[in-house]
Amino acid sequence: MENVITFKQMHVVSTSLGECTAELRVGLEHTNPTGTLHGGLASTLMDTVSILSYMTTSNGTIGQTIDLKLSFLKAAKVDDDILIIGRTVKTTKTLAFLEADIVNKNTGDVLVRGSEILHIVKQYHVV
Amino acid sequence: MENVITFKQMHVVSTSLGECTAELRVGLEHTNPTGTLHGGLASTLMDTVSILSYMTTSNGTIGQTIDLKLSFLKAAKVDDDILIIGRTVKTTKTLAFLEADIVNKNTGDVLVRGSEILHIVKQYHVV
Amino acid sequence: MENVITFKQMHVVSTSLGECTAELRVGLEHTNPTGTLHGGLASTLMDTVSILSYMTTSNGTIGQTIDLKLSFLKAAKVDDDILIIGRTVKTTKTLAFLEADIVNKNTGDVLVRGSEILHIVKQYHVV
Amino acid sequence: MENVITFKQMHVVSTSLGECTAELRVGLEHTNPTGTLHGGLASTLMDTVSILSYMTTSNGTIGQTIDLKLSFLKAAKVDDDILIIGRTVKTTKTLAFLEADIVNKNTGDVLVRGSEILHIVKQYHVV
Repeated sequence: MENVITFKQMHVVSTSLGECTAELRVGLEHTNPTGTLHGGLASTLMDTVSILSYMTTSNGTIGQTIDLKLSFLKAAKVDDDILIIGRTVKTTKTLAFLEADIVNKNTGDVLVRGSEILHIVKQYHVV
Repeated sequence: MENVITFKQMHVVSTSLGECTAELRVGLEHTNPTGTLHGGLASTLMDTVSILSYMTTSNGTIGQTIDLKLSFLKAAKVDDDILIIGRTVKTTKTLAFLEADIVNKNTGDVLVRGSEILHIVKQYHVV
Repeated sequence: MENVITFKQMHVVSTSLGECTAELRVGLEHTNPTGTLHGGLASTLMDTVSILSYMTTSNGTIGQTIDLKLSFLKAAKVDDDILIIGRTVKTTKTLAFLEADIVNKNTGDVLVRGSEILHIVKQYHVV
Repeated sequence: MENVITFKQMHVVSTSLGECTAELRVGLEHTNPTGTLHGGLASTLMDTVSILSYMTTSNGTIGQTIDLKLSFLKAAKVDDDILIIGRTVKTTKTLAFLEADIVNKNTGDVLVRGSEILHIVKQYHVV
């Protein structure tokens, strides 16, 4: 396991209402001993980008993740360019249901499918 | 979001057959904007330690995470000491079912409950 | 809780390679005390129709559910017509990754999103 | 698939604050074509009994399932006596986190592990 993981290469490539897409080139530091994207890191990417999708709709509120689920369909390897595509599927007064796919940018293959529930914290102010 | 996440402080405190426990003091770099342990990082800890629990039973095989699910029951904050307690619940020829809890070391409160499925890759040799 | 649940009304309305759609009119016997489609019954519908989608691709093999996850986005009520839309997302030698949505037929609203993993049992013969 | 599923045989065997245990003898009508307890039915049992565990703590409130997840570790067969053991792990103002295990009564083997989130509906009155 690497001791240092960096997201410096991840950058948001597009946003619209309820959606956010980011891109990352998989580096050696993002992989596990079998040479593929680490499951926990995929969770971090998925959690981060799906919350960004929520923030396009949230009027200054923010949420805390209460549930997170990922299915790993296909591995991403070093030097693969991946897209993390987050969506806000539904929002209620206290909850938001989010999804994110991680997709191989070149082949279009879905690598990871994730879903997540946020508990919305009202009147949150980022300092 | 921090650009650099470090696990240098995480260390394994005990192992037995099918079990592994690690410890981490939560640092500012492990938290999200609300000041609590980042959901994606919790996934990484959970994934890592539950796989370590599998490696105590695996006779040199290794697995790839195909499914990962976490419930976040209570937040961990900066300077909290947390234990990540991984268990291998069941192993078949091709699958392993793992669980991990993240617990506040001082209060004993369960913060995160996770479960995970590994697809076992045979005759894997760590180089 | 009702003691008897019947699926007599559920019928398959279309299939294609890797897909199956069924339809059901929600009856009182399908609901919980709050008057909405019972979560466990939704699981049964989702499990059943997603496995039917697998059977369109399976060359006589069958699978056993090893993991099942549902998110409930919106309630279905008595007399609602619902569609259960199952898909086989990916198949490997030993696993199949399935999804199903439950949708309100008239409004198009997604009510339930589910995902499931099958462990494939080879050379299975239905008797 | 059977058209009629009955729970007449299921009965609650014990309750305490935050816990409920029920028992069922698996009948042919509870099984899928491979002769084992149907995954969707297991969801129904798990959902029902974990909500009963919540009702021991709920002061007249009730909840709607927003998320449900099951892992199937071992099959139950016709004539197996199974226990469904539900627990309320944590309750907040708007949410309850529940778990349930399905266990073979004679061998003690854990067959199914489930977790569930309820959205609490306040001032609900059962009619």
